[in-house]
Amino acid sequence: MSPLLDKLTFNEAGLIPAIAQQHDTGEVLMMAWMNADSIAETLKTGQVCYWSRSRGKFWRKGESSGQTQKLVELRLDCDGDTLLLLVDQKGAACHTGRRNCFFTAWREDQMVEIATPLIAPEELYKTP
Amino acid sequence: MSPLLDKLTFNEAGLIPAIAQQHDTGEVLMMAWMNADSIAETLKTGQVCYWSRSRGKFWRKGESSGQTQKLVELRLDCDGDTLLLLVDQKGAACHTGRRNCFFTAWREDQMVEIATPLIAPEELYKTP
Repeated sequence: MSPLLDKLTFNEAGLIPAIAQQHDTGEVLMMAWMNADSIAETLKTGQVCYWSRSRGKFWRKGESSGQTQKLVELRLDCDGDTLLLLVDQKGAACHTGRRNCFFTAWREDQMVEIATPLIAPEELYKTP
Repeated sequence: MSPLLDKLTFNEAGLIPAIAQQHDTGEVLMMAWMNADSIAETLKTGQVCYWSRSRGKFWRKGESSGQTQKLVELRLDCDGDTLLLLVDQKGAACHTGRRNCFFTAWREDQMVEIATPLIAPEELYKTP
């Protein structure tokens, strides 16, 4: 994996932005951040892991919600400072229960909600 | 535009990441950064503008290369810290002359180049 890490530019916090895209439909699901450990774990397990900036910890996507992302392919951009993850998303990528996080559009000077939850948020994070 | 800006979280440098996606094919073209001024100018003109971190300046995409991006729709994510720009890209989004910046894939522990330039880079930036 070191030839990959050598090509990447991490920010001052050791993070790199990663765009997750549904591999077969092209839908942009979310953007989150990875560090070297989460890239390594993603490549090793085939399940996408991030670094959660809000919680300040390693984040195995879907571990608590079940809404996992299977890695199909990892790509990097021309200057090595952004990743594109082609994934197979199970259920909802967004913590609001929506398929993707980009459900708010700016149309005619107004915020418009363009998608509804597939899953109620309380169903995503209920304790067993 | 202030209801939009009020919803966005800019980083400590006053920037927000913006993913540009070709509106009709779903191709992820590039990721770059915007500040409040570049968002305002993009919405005003309908042509995408960024903030160039490498050059430290306002960047009217395609101004020198001719490879402009027409804005189709601006969306924000659930926590307002990433933008998704649906665009109509003229020619090549990447400074290498490729259609998109994500032309390097990590396959079987190797870096693989999966796209070739549409336009020679020297053609993109030649002085008139």
